[in-house]
Amino acid sequence: MKIPSSLDQLIDALRILPGVGPKSAQRMAYHLLQRNQSGAAALAHALADALTKLRHCQRCNTFTEFDLCELCADPARDKRQLCVVEMPTDLLRIEQTLAFKGCYFVLMGKLSPLDGVGPDDIHFDKLLARAQDGEVEEVILSTNFTVEGEATAHYLAELLRAQGLRVSRIARGLPSGGELEHVDSSTLAQALLERRSL
Amino acid sequence: MKIPSSLDQLIDALRILPGVGPKSAQRMAYHLLQRNQSGAAALAHALADALTKLRHCQRCNTFTEFDLCELCADPARDKRQLCVVEMPTDLLRIEQTLAFKGCYFVLMGKLSPLDGVGPDDIHFDKLLARAQDGEVEEVILSTNFTVEGEATAHYLAELLRAQGLRVSRIARGLPSGGELEHVDSSTLAQALLERRSL
Repeated sequence: MKIPSSLDQLIDALRILPGVGPKSAQRMAYHLLQRNQSGAAALAHALADALTKLRHCQRCNTFTEFDLCELCADPARDKRQLCVVEMPTDLLRIEQTLAFKGCYFVLMGKLSPLDGVGPDDIHFDKLLARAQDGEVEEVILSTNFTVEGEATAHYLAELLRAQGLRVSRIARGLPSGGELEHVDSSTLAQALLERRSL
Repeated sequence: MKIPSSLDQLIDALRILPGVGPKSAQRMAYHLLQRNQSGAAALAHALADALTKLRHCQRCNTFTEFDLCELCADPARDKRQLCVVEMPTDLLRIEQTLAFKGCYFVLMGKLSPLDGVGPDDIHFDKLLARAQDGEVEEVILSTNFTVEGEATAHYLAELLRAQGLRVSRIARGLPSGGELEHVDSSTLAQALLERRSL
């Protein structure tokens, strides 16, 4: 007894999704076919549509349906500050704070030697060209404070400083309203090391 | 700053997958677009293909690309025994044991009042018609020993016995090679209750 090949191929195709193994792929396939055929058709359409329409913003590298994304096309943004983030979600998160009026560059990834992601895979050349447009005065590295995010920030700092650019890193420390008693040791240790003079 | 609508729609569409919330859907969308566009295209194609080609076997209700599935079309199978399972995976699992030579019926689900799945959603009428073809002598209920699987088995037993059919349930008990010391209490208690006379 073999399972029908189109079912087999669907299960295989679902396994490319991150975090989806053989068992979940099977469960997803049966769920789609048995309980949500219209959802499956919508997913197929959304995938094809996104693949056709989405590209990278020529300036900031985020996903957009046009040459320039909404933010890069906005003349009111401060061209002197360039905030570098890992993913579009990070950009949206910073925008939600309403605390930053400059421009962004989205790396669409991070250095991650263990996953085989090196400097060539992240298109740092596009960032270098962007940072050297003559208007940018400061590059604010806002990658995550994970091992990979930190490595990416260090690598980029070297690269950008070598071009004579001013480079900064968002602050690490206790959260607003945070209590020493409840913060993890690593954050507390770093907050002590990176203390600010008043 | 809004995210492009085709990206938004893709994230929405991915959320129909079981076990996928807003965060994973976002992660999946970025992964597909940034790291695996060919995989995404293959997934879109596999979905459309499966939706077009797959249908339910007219006799056993499993997924097939033809009117009858491979097993139902096989004249060598014993027509007197009908094994009822919840999903196609269960059928494949039983086939792997090489211990059953009869026919199957795949419910494609189970009674699950909490999820709003009642007798009308499971197409028990198709099973009833199948079991009353004149050749079936025994219906072997092989739904899972979960709460829903047990409820389904009890419901079906009533229904099928009322039609004068012989109904049995696969055995529950200790696994082969299992030791009393290591088996869970519920299984052990049931194994005592359902002891066989020798």
